[in-house]
Amino acid sequence: MKVIVVLELDTTPGAARRWVEHDPSTPLLTATDFGATRGDGVFETILVLHGVPQAMEAHLDRFARSAQLLDLPVPDRTLWRDAISAAADRLRDHPRAAVKYVCTRGNEATGGTPTGWLTAFVPSTRTEGGPPTLRVVALDRGYRSDVATTSPWLLQGAKTLSYALNMAALREAGRRGADDVVFVSSDGLVLEGPTSTVIARFDGVYTTPPVELGILPGTTQHDVFAALRGRGESVAVRPFTLDELRGAEAIWLCSSTRGAAPVGRLDGETRTVDAAMTTTINAALDARGN
Amino acid sequence: MKVIVVLELDTTPGAARRWVEHDPSTPLLTATDFGATRGDGVFETILVLHGVPQAMEAHLDRFARSAQLLDLPVPDRTLWRDAISAAADRLRDHPRAAVKYVCTRGNEATGGTPTGWLTAFVPSTRTEGGPPTLRVVALDRGYRSDVATTSPWLLQGAKTLSYALNMAALREAGRRGADDVVFVSSDGLVLEGPTSTVIARFDGVYTTPPVELGILPGTTQHDVFAALRGRGESVAVRPFTLDELRGAEAIWLCSSTRGAAPVGRLDGETRTVDAAMTTTINAALDARGN
Repeated sequence: MKVIVVLELDTTPGAARRWVEHDPSTPLLTATDFGATRGDGVFETILVLHGVPQAMEAHLDRFARSAQLLDLPVPDRTLWRDAISAAADRLRDHPRAAVKYVCTRGNEATGGTPTGWLTAFVPSTRTEGGPPTLRVVALDRGYRSDVATTSPWLLQGAKTLSYALNMAALREAGRRGADDVVFVSSDGLVLEGPTSTVIARFDGVYTTPPVELGILPGTTQHDVFAALRGRGESVAVRPFTLDELRGAEAIWLCSSTRGAAPVGRLDGETRTVDAAMTTTINAALDARGN
Repeated sequence: MKVIVVLELDTTPGAARRWVEHDPSTPLLTATDFGATRGDGVFETILVLHGVPQAMEAHLDRFARSAQLLDLPVPDRTLWRDAISAAADRLRDHPRAAVKYVCTRGNEATGGTPTGWLTAFVPSTRTEGGPPTLRVVALDRGYRSDVATTSPWLLQGAKTLSYALNMAALREAGRRGADDVVFVSSDGLVLEGPTSTVIARFDGVYTTPPVELGILPGTTQHDVFAALRGRGESVAVRPFTLDELRGAEAIWLCSSTRGAAPVGRLDGETRTVDAAMTTTINAALDARGN
């Protein structure tokens, strides 16, 4: 990643200077910030095309939902929207970039307000020629598919800073000669990737698992489905098993910065890639405006 | 918590100045540190009595094990031991204090070495009169008891910065009128607390669950067992169910800063506290030396 600018937020209600520009190489968080010591905060990463943030409201919705699941104060939507726009504007010379925005529970030593910041950056994960074709492995997520309902303290469905497990899963994929992961529940249902949403086509129907399984609502998947509907394609939200996934006609992993990346290999087995539809979907994503 | 000093480490091998004192109120971590953005790092909190760190080697062992589970570079044991001693020495005027030490994967934007720091502080969790009597609730941990073996990428048994879930469980306890939590596996076995190890007495035998269930090796529990053995008591490490726990003669939650805290209520049911043994155990912990 190449960091262009960091904005530090003042989350105090009614603050006069709502954010200040911060030198990316200079420390921003204290040693006792809950974000640094407990992974106790929430974040979003939003795609920015020529300075224009994509799917802004969907990301703000999810950010608010994550904060609620963590019992954090409700984020000031106007403050965050304005700050995201300001950070994104600094990326206007970059055709494809991103803003990551983060809110933590604040400083354990001093108490008080949440810590907020935004990092505008050019990611290294996608070339201009479109998303990569992925080699994917299926990994046990450990949880049953109903834990979001039975055990909300497990924070499934919240996008938190506690991502060590997601990173460990990606390293495990690397050890298995793959690039990415599809998590599977302990009862055999396909969930999501560590940083992506799964879409699979079954008998012509583009299908994604429901958020009730304890997964994040995919902002990119949402826009892919809108584009597909606009073209008269059938879409569905329903649970499916890993065995079903192995029988899918095509699979994509969707994320903000990468778009819809086709899966060319699953657990070592080569899979057919629908190159034409991949191009169509990603062209639609790139034409979203905001 | 009252922060006394922060030491910032230079983890570069052979660094001339191995650490520098850092103003606790001044930021230490960049906005792109993996510790701040992914909870991607490991930590330990060690009890310090009159400037003397307790169970130093056991904590260093666990720190190294956590780093290994996260594929982090092996921590320089001498560096960390020396830095912990230096931070602890600054607490010599405090009868009961702690050092938290943290190592993250480093700065995503610049790559390079892990980020390391230590915070010497006086915790607010224990009065001088001994640990509090706890009201505890049992909460589903979501995982089967065998995931540490089957699914190592779930990082069970590693003490990582990704603690949002542990904090959420403590808030859930608060909502239920309790102070703390005992996690239970999806197959019904007692695991550990969010920041503690469980000891239960069954028919006179002090018993703790095995680390193979995907829990942390308890440094305090280890020393409690040593003290009990020294007094001719029977100890055992074996799995037990939540139903068995409800039938225990006495229960304690053990942690570095709090010691062995007796459980006076479990899921709303009042329980007998062995006050004499609680005093004996905590006196033994306080007499450890280092």
